[in-house]
Amino acid sequence: MRVDLALIGFGHVGQAFVRLLDSRRDRLLRDWKLDCRITGIATRSRGAVVNHAGIDGVAASLMVEAGGALHDLGEPATDVVAVVDRVSAGGSDVRIVVETTTLNIADGQPAIGHVRAALERGCHVVTANKGPAAFAYHELAALAAARRRAFLFEGAVMDGIPIFSLVRETLPAVEIAAFRGVINSTTNHILTALEEGEAFAPALARMQADGIAEADPSLDVDGWDAAAKAAVLANVFFDARVTPHDVVRAGIDADTAARARQAVANGCRLRLIASGARGERPSVRLVELPHDDILAGLRGTANALIVETDLLGRIAIGQMDGGLIQTAYALLGDMLAVTKLVRR
Amino acid sequence: MRVDLALIGFGHVGQAFVRLLDSRRDRLLRDWKLDCRITGIATRSRGAVVNHAGIDGVAASLMVEAGGALHDLGEPATDVVAVVDRVSAGGSDVRIVVETTTLNIADGQPAIGHVRAALERGCHVVTANKGPAAFAYHELAALAAARRRAFLFEGAVMDGIPIFSLVRETLPAVEIAAFRGVINSTTNHILTALEEGEAFAPALARMQADGIAEADPSLDVDGWDAAAKAAVLANVFFDARVTPHDVVRAGIDADTAARARQAVANGCRLRLIASGARGERPSVRLVELPHDDILAGLRGTANALIVETDLLGRIAIGQMDGGLIQTAYALLGDMLAVTKLVRR
Repeated sequence: MRVDLALIGFGHVGQAFVRLLDSRRDRLLRDWKLDCRITGIATRSRGAVVNHAGIDGVAASLMVEAGGALHDLGEPATDVVAVVDRVSAGGSDVRIVVETTTLNIADGQPAIGHVRAALERGCHVVTANKGPAAFAYHELAALAAARRRAFLFEGAVMDGIPIFSLVRETLPAVEIAAFRGVINSTTNHILTALEEGEAFAPALARMQADGIAEADPSLDVDGWDAAAKAAVLANVFFDARVTPHDVVRAGIDADTAARARQAVANGCRLRLIASGARGERPSVRLVELPHDDILAGLRGTANALIVETDLLGRIAIGQMDGGLIQTAYALLGDMLAVTKLVRR
Repeated sequence: MRVDLALIGFGHVGQAFVRLLDSRRDRLLRDWKLDCRITGIATRSRGAVVNHAGIDGVAASLMVEAGGALHDLGEPATDVVAVVDRVSAGGSDVRIVVETTTLNIADGQPAIGHVRAALERGCHVVTANKGPAAFAYHELAALAAARRRAFLFEGAVMDGIPIFSLVRETLPAVEIAAFRGVINSTTNHILTALEEGEAFAPALARMQADGIAEADPSLDVDGWDAAAKAAVLANVFFDARVTPHDVVRAGIDADTAARARQAVANGCRLRLIASGARGERPSVRLVELPHDDILAGLRGTANALIVETDLLGRIAIGQMDGGLIQTAYALLGDMLAVTKLVRR
């Protein structure tokens, strides 16, 4: 089966995805009978390009990293919609738009527009961007259903750890009543450092130097990243119609260090907890957890989510090792899920 | 779609399954278009019966609980094979044998024979019994593949929490390199009591009174239950060919109390850990875990499994609340997975 891929966004996540795809190319062909080609790439600052014969993704990544532009790798395109137009007209068995632009916490744009354009043109969409499902889940899911296309976003929460596919594929007839979890790595890493006695500013600076925190860490430390994930979880699990701006939100700052150390003195741990329940407003809050709470034991970049179900009680799923490769896998896993759906 | 079910074994698990099925009957018909009928039941001591018009499972459960036999509910059958023969000849869209006899740790029989007979007669098999996959996974999986039937056993490890379907359905192209976990509830519950200062015998007696431990608790406390689960995990994840007798095995006894308290004094927790890795002999061992190990924090009947993967690092999945209803759900979930496979 021939799969044409249009990459919208080509930063760290998009480039990690093409490298993962390249490393698995033989296995995808052998085990999955998939001939995957990148036939379009749209970047914010390095141009956009299409090539029906296939673009060498690793070469494109090296070119972008070296500061070059993409125009030598194919035919230039004017913008994202032009790339989607051309890829969707390619006539292959499956056309998938891989959306990896960064989260815009104001309104989720332009990613929502990218997803909409792709679905309207008969492409499936896989994305690691939280924006579309956090701001427009119902509209986009309905559009995907109407066009019989997939809109998948496993990488939006807990990187490559299956959350949405866990519920969709492995828990038939189970209802989710509530969730709570540690779902932002940067703040959990900083909280772990604070409770070991480090101050806020140097802990944050160290995370930035190690590439764990962003150069602009405000989305993480102000709780916006966790709020966007909580909105996605509520929209999908509870059929809620919330955006990140509807989430009760807290973050961490220089004053958090004393609270984190006090929590340890109390035999507890301070954690930034995202939670939600059917019919309730989701929240992101700093909570002092007793030692025997499984979320208290999460250190560093470990993440975990506990879902309360009607039939199975509480189920926990967690990742000990989060990062770029995991997010890239989320896109690959979603891509494989699309091909399974198409084959049915 | 009409689904005929043959129940082989009708103890606590089988009866919990029919009650769950009865409570979800309307929803299965509405959301899944499934008309499920129990057309045969085989018990060890209350006879075996078939009825193509459908047997009232709840009535059968009440009858068995009241000490009666099943013969009023249909036509008597001589044995398990006769029940499977008659159900498989029923001509419905899907015929599923639901195997819930208890684990025989000597050789997995007669359950293996039940599974084999069912697959050979064109039935799908779902089971909560660890025996078939612990002793004969490869033979039965190959037989199922040859007959294009399903052999599912999600309830064999961690009750209804998805382990096998997690890997099968949500982690495409991911390889499992190793696992470690707390997967026996009775021993973990006793270890929790021991570290709080209770002695072994009264702790065990209390678990038995509460229905958590069996009247004959030796399969649990001697580590056999965990060893059987470790064998299933190794057979499925690593393509191993082991039985529970190949698993390095430890259990707990009166001497464990002092070790559990000493672990607490050391700032640790003593846990019965099942583990395995590709190409290695699986084991069940008492291990002193540091506080920040996620498995150390599991108290009471909580279970969790950590799998090490090539692409995603370590993933943890756990259940906080295990029990009969969860095991019954495992059978229901497997039944729904069978109907999904048939529809493809």
